[in-house]
Amino acid sequence: MNKFISCQKPYSTAKIVLFGAGFDGTTSYRPGTRFAPDKIRSESFGIETYSPYLDRDLEDSNICDIGDLELPFGNTTRVLDMVESKTAEILADNKIPVMLGGEHLITLGAFKAVLKKYPEVCIVHFDAHTDLREEYIGEKLSHSTVIKRCHDEIQKQADNKKKTAKIIRIFQFGIRSGEKYEFEFAKANTYLCKNDFSGLDKILPIIKDKPVYFTVDLDVLDPSEFPGTGTPEAGGVRFLELLNATQKIFENSRVVMADIVELNPMIDTGGISTALACKYLRELLLQMGV
Amino acid sequence: MNKFISCQKPYSTAKIVLFGAGFDGTTSYRPGTRFAPDKIRSESFGIETYSPYLDRDLEDSNICDIGDLELPFGNTTRVLDMVESKTAEILADNKIPVMLGGEHLITLGAFKAVLKKYPEVCIVHFDAHTDLREEYIGEKLSHSTVIKRCHDEIQKQADNKKKTAKIIRIFQFGIRSGEKYEFEFAKANTYLCKNDFSGLDKILPIIKDKPVYFTVDLDVLDPSEFPGTGTPEAGGVRFLELLNATQKIFENSRVVMADIVELNPMIDTGGISTALACKYLRELLLQMGV
Amino acid sequence: MNKFISCQKPYSTAKIVLFGAGFDGTTSYRPGTRFAPDKIRSESFGIETYSPYLDRDLEDSNICDIGDLELPFGNTTRVLDMVESKTAEILADNKIPVMLGGEHLITLGAFKAVLKKYPEVCIVHFDAHTDLREEYIGEKLSHSTVIKRCHDEIQKQADNKKKTAKIIRIFQFGIRSGEKYEFEFAKANTYLCKNDFSGLDKILPIIKDKPVYFTVDLDVLDPSEFPGTGTPEAGGVRFLELLNATQKIFENSRVVMADIVELNPMIDTGGISTALACKYLRELLLQMGV
Amino acid sequence: MNKFISCQKPYSTAKIVLFGAGFDGTTSYRPGTRFAPDKIRSESFGIETYSPYLDRDLEDSNICDIGDLELPFGNTTRVLDMVESKTAEILADNKIPVMLGGEHLITLGAFKAVLKKYPEVCIVHFDAHTDLREEYIGEKLSHSTVIKRCHDEIQKQADNKKKTAKIIRIFQFGIRSGEKYEFEFAKANTYLCKNDFSGLDKILPIIKDKPVYFTVDLDVLDPSEFPGTGTPEAGGVRFLELLNATQKIFENSRVVMADIVELNPMIDTGGISTALACKYLRELLLQMGV
Amino acid sequence: MNKFISCQKPYSTAKIVLFGAGFDGTTSYRPGTRFAPDKIRSESFGIETYSPYLDRDLEDSNICDIGDLELPFGNTTRVLDMVESKTAEILADNKIPVMLGGEHLITLGAFKAVLKKYPEVCIVHFDAHTDLREEYIGEKLSHSTVIKRCHDEIQKQADNKKKTAKIIRIFQFGIRSGEKYEFEFAKANTYLCKNDFSGLDKILPIIKDKPVYFTVDLDVLDPSEFPGTGTPEAGGVRFLELLNATQKIFENSRVVMADIVELNPMIDTGGISTALACKYLRELLLQMGV
Amino acid sequence: MNKFISCQKPYSTAKIVLFGAGFDGTTSYRPGTRFAPDKIRSESFGIETYSPYLDRDLEDSNICDIGDLELPFGNTTRVLDMVESKTAEILADNKIPVMLGGEHLITLGAFKAVLKKYPEVCIVHFDAHTDLREEYIGEKLSHSTVIKRCHDEIQKQADNKKKTAKIIRIFQFGIRSGEKYEFEFAKANTYLCKNDFSGLDKILPIIKDKPVYFTVDLDVLDPSEFPGTGTPEAGGVRFLELLNATQKIFENSRVVMADIVELNPMIDTGGISTALACKYLRELLLQMGV
Repeated sequence: MNKFISCQKPYSTAKIVLFGAGFDGTTSYRPGTRFAPDKIRSESFGIETYSPYLDRDLEDSNICDIGDLELPFGNTTRVLDMVESKTAEILADNKIPVMLGGEHLITLGAFKAVLKKYPEVCIVHFDAHTDLREEYIGEKLSHSTVIKRCHDEIQKQADNKKKTAKIIRIFQFGIRSGEKYEFEFAKANTYLCKNDFSGLDKILPIIKDKPVYFTVDLDVLDPSEFPGTGTPEAGGVRFLELLNATQKIFENSRVVMADIVELNPMIDTGGISTALACKYLRELLLQMGV
Repeated sequence: MNKFISCQKPYSTAKIVLFGAGFDGTTSYRPGTRFAPDKIRSESFGIETYSPYLDRDLEDSNICDIGDLELPFGNTTRVLDMVESKTAEILADNKIPVMLGGEHLITLGAFKAVLKKYPEVCIVHFDAHTDLREEYIGEKLSHSTVIKRCHDEIQKQADNKKKTAKIIRIFQFGIRSGEKYEFEFAKANTYLCKNDFSGLDKILPIIKDKPVYFTVDLDVLDPSEFPGTGTPEAGGVRFLELLNATQKIFENSRVVMADIVELNPMIDTGGISTALACKYLRELLLQMGV
Repeated sequence: MNKFISCQKPYSTAKIVLFGAGFDGTTSYRPGTRFAPDKIRSESFGIETYSPYLDRDLEDSNICDIGDLELPFGNTTRVLDMVESKTAEILADNKIPVMLGGEHLITLGAFKAVLKKYPEVCIVHFDAHTDLREEYIGEKLSHSTVIKRCHDEIQKQADNKKKTAKIIRIFQFGIRSGEKYEFEFAKANTYLCKNDFSGLDKILPIIKDKPVYFTVDLDVLDPSEFPGTGTPEAGGVRFLELLNATQKIFENSRVVMADIVELNPMIDTGGISTALACKYLRELLLQMGV
Repeated sequence: MNKFISCQKPYSTAKIVLFGAGFDGTTSYRPGTRFAPDKIRSESFGIETYSPYLDRDLEDSNICDIGDLELPFGNTTRVLDMVESKTAEILADNKIPVMLGGEHLITLGAFKAVLKKYPEVCIVHFDAHTDLREEYIGEKLSHSTVIKRCHDEIQKQADNKKKTAKIIRIFQFGIRSGEKYEFEFAKANTYLCKNDFSGLDKILPIIKDKPVYFTVDLDVLDPSEFPGTGTPEAGGVRFLELLNATQKIFENSRVVMADIVELNPMIDTGGISTALACKYLRELLLQMGV
Repeated sequence: MNKFISCQKPYSTAKIVLFGAGFDGTTSYRPGTRFAPDKIRSESFGIETYSPYLDRDLEDSNICDIGDLELPFGNTTRVLDMVESKTAEILADNKIPVMLGGEHLITLGAFKAVLKKYPEVCIVHFDAHTDLREEYIGEKLSHSTVIKRCHDEIQKQADNKKKTAKIIRIFQFGIRSGEKYEFEFAKANTYLCKNDFSGLDKILPIIKDKPVYFTVDLDVLDPSEFPGTGTPEAGGVRFLELLNATQKIFENSRVVMADIVELNPMIDTGGISTALACKYLRELLLQMGV
Repeated sequence: MNKFISCQKPYSTAKIVLFGAGFDGTTSYRPGTRFAPDKIRSESFGIETYSPYLDRDLEDSNICDIGDLELPFGNTTRVLDMVESKTAEILADNKIPVMLGGEHLITLGAFKAVLKKYPEVCIVHFDAHTDLREEYIGEKLSHSTVIKRCHDEIQKQADNKKKTAKIIRIFQFGIRSGEKYEFEFAKANTYLCKNDFSGLDKILPIIKDKPVYFTVDLDVLDPSEFPGTGTPEAGGVRFLELLNATQKIFENSRVVMADIVELNPMIDTGGISTALACKYLRELLLQMGV
C-alpha cells in the first residue's frame, strides 16, 4: 500500500494518524470521491515534503498513515459504524486522527467518536454548502444532512445532560449554497459566515483553547482552483485564503481531529484538484506541529 | 422529462412500459451507471426509429416511457423495494416492463415481482461476470451477487412448495470472469456458457414458450465496442452476435420482462457505448413486436 | 423535455419566458454551443433554487421555460428569422424574453425584434471580444460581427428617422480582444470599457430607466472560472464581479430582454462552466424579481 | 502549413492533388469535422510512408498536398461553390483530386464538378448511413441528404438528355441506418448493400473501367475501431475489410476522384480514429499508383 | 507500495519475479508508458485472480512482485544498465523475471542479461512494428531499434564464437508497420509474420524446448481493443488470438523471461487498455504454472 | 510547417527569432511538453495579432519563426548542445532569440550561449519551483536542477576570471515549492521572492540597462489559470500580474533572450493553458518593440 509522502512513522509512537474512508454512497450527483484517498497518496510523490509557507518539513513530522478502511458498498450505517469505531480506537490511543474522504457524511461517524471523548468539542466547518438539510429524498443520512446530524448529536448530548442553555458549537465558513430553510436554521443554531472567512476573527476567541473538530469540504474553494468535486459552486475562496484561515484555526484552538472531504478524482480532468489536495493536506499536517 | 425516442404512447393502452432505475449504490469500482437512463434518453435522438435489421419502426410500436424512479441514495433495501413495487404495478396492468439500469443489483427487485406473477419464470442472463458471489465485503446485496440472490428466490419458492427436483432455471451466456467457487456453483445450479453464445441453441428447446426474465449486462460485449462500463472484460461478444442471440431468445420464448444494465456514461469518453445502448434498446423493444 | 429548475409556470400568466437557441453555425473555432441550452437545463438540477446572495427563491418566480427553437443546420438567415420571430411573439405578449445560446450571433435576431418594440433600447454588452468586425471570411453574419450588425440596425433606424445626432447606445464591458480597427470603431461609436467593469458606474445614469437589451457572452469571465467556451481569453473578470455588475444593470435600468451565450459543453471537460452558467442564470432570473 | 507526409511534389507535375474542405456547417449532432484535415496532416508524421500491405511507399508517389480551402462559416451554398470550383480546377489540370472532409455534404460540391467532366461517372459510397433524405429540418442541403442530392444531379443530367432508361449509378455499401423511406428509395434507385461489402463482387463488372467517384464516410467502420465520428453506428465493418474492399474498387474501375469524410477529432479522445484515418489515406493514395 | 494482485510471495522462495521498468525516454511520439507498472498494479484489484480460460488461480501461484526500479530521467544508458543488472540478479537466483514496461527499449537491457545466462536463447516478439531500425534521429538506442539491437547482441555473440552459420533466432508476429528497409532486413535475418499469428505453428518445432525471451508489445493488439498506446496501428490481432498464441509459445518452448511493454495510461481515456493489460498479465503469469 | 501568427518575416532582416525546443526528456512526472511549440503555433490562429494592452500589433513586428529544432530522443547532452549551438548562431547574427519549450532544462543550453556573448548577463526567472536541486535521482541535468546549473556556469565564469566578489545575478519570482536546502542555497546565492512579484520593484535598479536572460516557467501562474503543466502548484500568480511584471522587466533592463517553458498540451484538457500561452507569447514579443 502506498502511504502519503513521508507519513511512515510507526503507529505506536505516532502523534498523528492518517486514514482514508473512501465512501461515496450518498453522493447525489457525480460519485467518485471513493477514489480520493488512494489518489491523494499516489500523487503525493509529486509534491515536496518541505513547506516554504511554514518552513517545516513533513520528514520531521511524527505521522503514521494506516491506509484505508475496507468499507462495504451499499450499507451506509455499517460504514458509519466502521468510521466511528476506527476513530474511537485512534483517540483511545491518544493520537490525533486525520481522515481523508470520501464524501462528507463520513464526518458524522468520526464526530460521534470525538464527541464521546471530548464532550465540549466544537465543529469548525469550511464548505460551499450548509449541509443542514433535514433529509434528502427521504434519507436522514446524506452528505447534505451531515452537519445537521452532527448538530443532532450535540443536541442529544445536551438533552441527556438536561441542559437548557443554547450554546453555538458549530462554526461554518465559505457557505454559498443551500435551501432557504437551512440558512434559517443556521441563523438560530450555528454561526454561519457566507462566501468567505470574513467572520473568522470574530469567533477565534470563542474557540480559544477549546477542542475542535475541523472539517474541510474542499468545495469551499473556488471551482477554478478546485474543479474536481461533485457540486462545484462558483464564487468560492482561494487557496491562500484557505491556508490562512486554517492557520488561524490551529493557532487559536486545539484541533483534536480533522478531515478533508469531497475530492472526486473521476472528474479532476487535469489533476490540479488532486495536486491541491495533496498540498493542502501537507500544510494541514504541518500545522499540527513537527 | 425526455422520453426515449418515439416511446410516447399513453400508459393506459401501452403494451410495453419503459422505466429507469438509476441506482449504482453497490458498484464496487467506478460508479456512474446512475446517469445511464437519462443519457440513453437524450442520446436516443441521435438514432433512427427504423431498424433495417428487422424492417420495423419504433413509431409503429406501442410503448410508454414513464421515466425514472426517484430513488434515494445510500439505502439499498429501500431502492430494491421501490423497484419491486413499480415492476409489480406494471405487471398487474398486464404490460411488459423494460427496465434501464443502473447497476445489475436492480434486477433482484424486479425479479421478485416477476417471480410472483410468473412462478415458472426462467432467467436468461447475458453478462461478462457470473454474478454468483455469496457476498461482497460482507454484503449480500451487491451487483456481484445479484444472480445468486435471484437463485435464492427461486430456491425459496421451491422450498415453499416442498419441491425436491432440481430444475435449471438460470441460463448464463458470455461469462468470462468470476471467482472459482462461482464457476463451481454454476456447474451444479445454472446453465453457464463461457465467453459467447455458442451454447444458446442447446437451451432454446428448454425455454420454448416459457416465461423468461431477460437481463442484459452490457459488459457482455467486448470492451472495444462497449468501453463505457465499470469493469471491462476483454474477450467479449460483438454487437451483431448480441443482436442475433437476442433475436433467438425472443423467437423461442415468452419474454415477460427485460432489463439492460451497467452502462456508465461517466467513463464513456467518446460516447460510443451510449450510442450502442440506444441502438440495442431500440432493437430489443422492436423484438417485442409492433 | 427538461425545463430549467422551477421554471414551470404556465406561459399565459408568466412574466418571464425562457427559451433556447442552440445555434453555432458561424462559430469559427471550436463549435458546440448548440448543446448549451439542453445541458444547462439538465444540470440545473444540481443547483439550489434559493439564492443566498439575493435571498430570493426561483420557486417564487413566475417563469415559463418554453424549450428550444428547432433550428435548421446550415442556414444562418433562416435561423435568425426564427429567433426574431419567436422574440417578437413573446414581446407581443408583454413578457420578458430570456434567451440561451448558442453562439453570439443569435443576439442579432432577437435584437431586431426588441428594437421594433422598444425603439429607444440600449445594448449592455459583457464580453471578452468587441464583436465589432465588419465581416469574417467574407460573411457579414458572424459571431464576431454581431455587435456591429446591431449597431447597423440602430443606424438604419436613425437613418429612417433622419436623425443626425449621434447618441451612444451600445455599452461594452470586459473587452480584451479584437482587431485594431474594432477598437477604433468603438472609440467613435460605442462606450467600451477594457478588461473589467471599472467604467460601469459612469454609464448607469445614462441608461437610467431606459429599456436595455442585456447580452452576456460568458467568455467575459476569466477562463479559469469559465473554461468551457470556444475562444478563452486570459485576464477576465471573476464570477462575483459579474454578479455585482449584473445587479447594477438591473437596479439602474429597465431590462426588456436578456441573453446568455457562448457556453460550449463539448469542451467543458470537468463541468464547472456549465455549473456556473446554471447559477448565473438563476441569479439573472431572480434579478428580474419574484 | 503542414502537408500530409511525403505529399510534397510540385503541383504542376503532380498526378494526384490532395486538399482539405473542413466544413461541418450542416452537422446535426456533434460538430468538429472541420478540424479533420489539419489533424490528419499533423498526425501523419506518426505513421510510416511505406505500406507493407501493398509493398509501396508514399515517397515514390507523385502527390501534391495543396492544403485547405479557406471556407467561410455559416454560408453553405458559398462553401459548396468553392469546393466545386476548386475540384473543377484540378480536374481541368488533368489531375486526380482527393478531398479530405469535413462532413459529407462537401461531396455534393465536388461531385458536380466531376459529373461535368465525366458525364458517365458512377458513385461508390461506403457509409453507415443511406444519406438519402429528401431534407433535414427543412433544409435540402445536409450531410444526411448528400447522396440524394447527387442522385438529383444525375437525374437532371438524364432529364437534359431526355433519357428515359433508368441505370443504377450509385452503389452503397456498409449501410445500417436510415429512415424507412430512404431504404425504399434505395431499392428503386441505387444499389444498396446492408452492413458490409458482401455484395461488392456483384457490382464490380458493372463499374468495370468506368469513371468512379469514390466517397468514404469513415463511419462505415465499426465504432470500436473508429469512435471519432459524430454518429457512431454499432455493427460496422473492420479496417481490413475496408482496405480489401477499397482495393477491389481501384482494381476494377477508374477512380477519377475520391474523398474521405466525417472524422471528428474533437471526440476522438484517444486518437485511434485519427491514426486510422491517416493510415487509410496512405493506403488509398497508394492504390492510385506510384 | 502496491503489488500486482496476489503476487505477494516472499522473494527467497518465489519461482517468478515481477518487476517494473517505467522508462519512456526514447518514446518519439506520445510519452507516458512510465506510468504503466504502477497503474497496472493498482487496477489489478479490479480483476479476478481466477482464470476461467485456464482454470487456474493466481492465489495458487508462487510469484513475488518486487516493485519498480527507481530509474533516472534523461539518461538512457544508465537506465539500460540498471535493467540489465536487476535482470541478471533475478536470473542468478534461478527465478523467471517478468518485466513490465515502460517502452520497448528496456527489452534490450534485459535481453543482454538473458543472453549471458542462456546463450542459445531465442526471441519471440509480438508487435505491430518491426522495431528493426538502425537508428532514430541519430540515436541507436530507441524503442524503434530495439529488436535490431538485440539482433546485434546475438551477432556479437556469434562473432565472438567465430560462428559463420546463420540461424534465425528472432521470431516476429503481428507486424504491420515499418520502413521498407526494415522489412527487407527481416526477410534475411528474422522470421517475420505479417499482421497476425498465422505463421506461428510453423515455428513451434524450431523453438521446441529452447529457452525463449518472450517480449510482447501490446500494440500488437488492434487499437479498438487496446487504444492506450502511443502509436496505434489499425488492423491488429484480437485479445483471444493473443491469448491463444501466448499459450502455444508456453506449451512449446521454455520461456526464461517475459516482458509486456507499451501500455500508456495517459492516453487510455476509458481505462480498457489497462484493464486488458492486467488480465493479460494474469494469463501470462498463469501460463508459467502454479 | 505552421508559424506563430504573423511571425513570417525573413530571417535575414528579422530582429527577433522564434524557435521551438520540444524536449521533455528529464520530466520526472507527466511528460508531454514536447508538443508545446507545435500546439502553440497551431492554436495561435485563435488569437488576435493586436494587443489592446499595449496598443501594438504583431503584424507590425519584425519576427521570424524558424520552427523547431529536430531533437533526438533519449540523449540529453546532445539536445542541450543543439540548443546551445542554435542560440549561438542567432546571437551571432545579432538577433534576439525567443525559445519555446519543452521543459525547463533547455534553458541551460541556451544560457550557455548567451553567457558567452553577454558575460554580464543576469537571469530573471519566473517559476513556481526553485529549480536549484543539485541532482535528481543521480542526474545533474534535470528540469529541477536547471537554475543551479546556470548558476554553476556563472560560477565557472567567475572562477576563470579569478573573481572573488559574489554578485547576485539570478533573480527568482513566484517561487513556492522546493526542498529546504534549495531555499537555503537561494538565500546565499540568488535573489528569491516567494509566491509573487512583490519584490520586483526592489531589483529593477539592479538590472537597469543590464543584459537579461528572461526565463518564464508558466507554472508560475496559478493552476486555475494554467492547469496544463506537469507539476501544478496552488497559490500562484494571475495572468495580469504576470503581464505587469513582464512589462517591468522589459522596461527596466535589456532582454537579450527569452524563453517560455513547461506548457504540457497533453494535460491541457480544455485548452485554456495553450490559449494563455499564445496570448502571453504575443505580449512578450510585443514588449520587444515593433
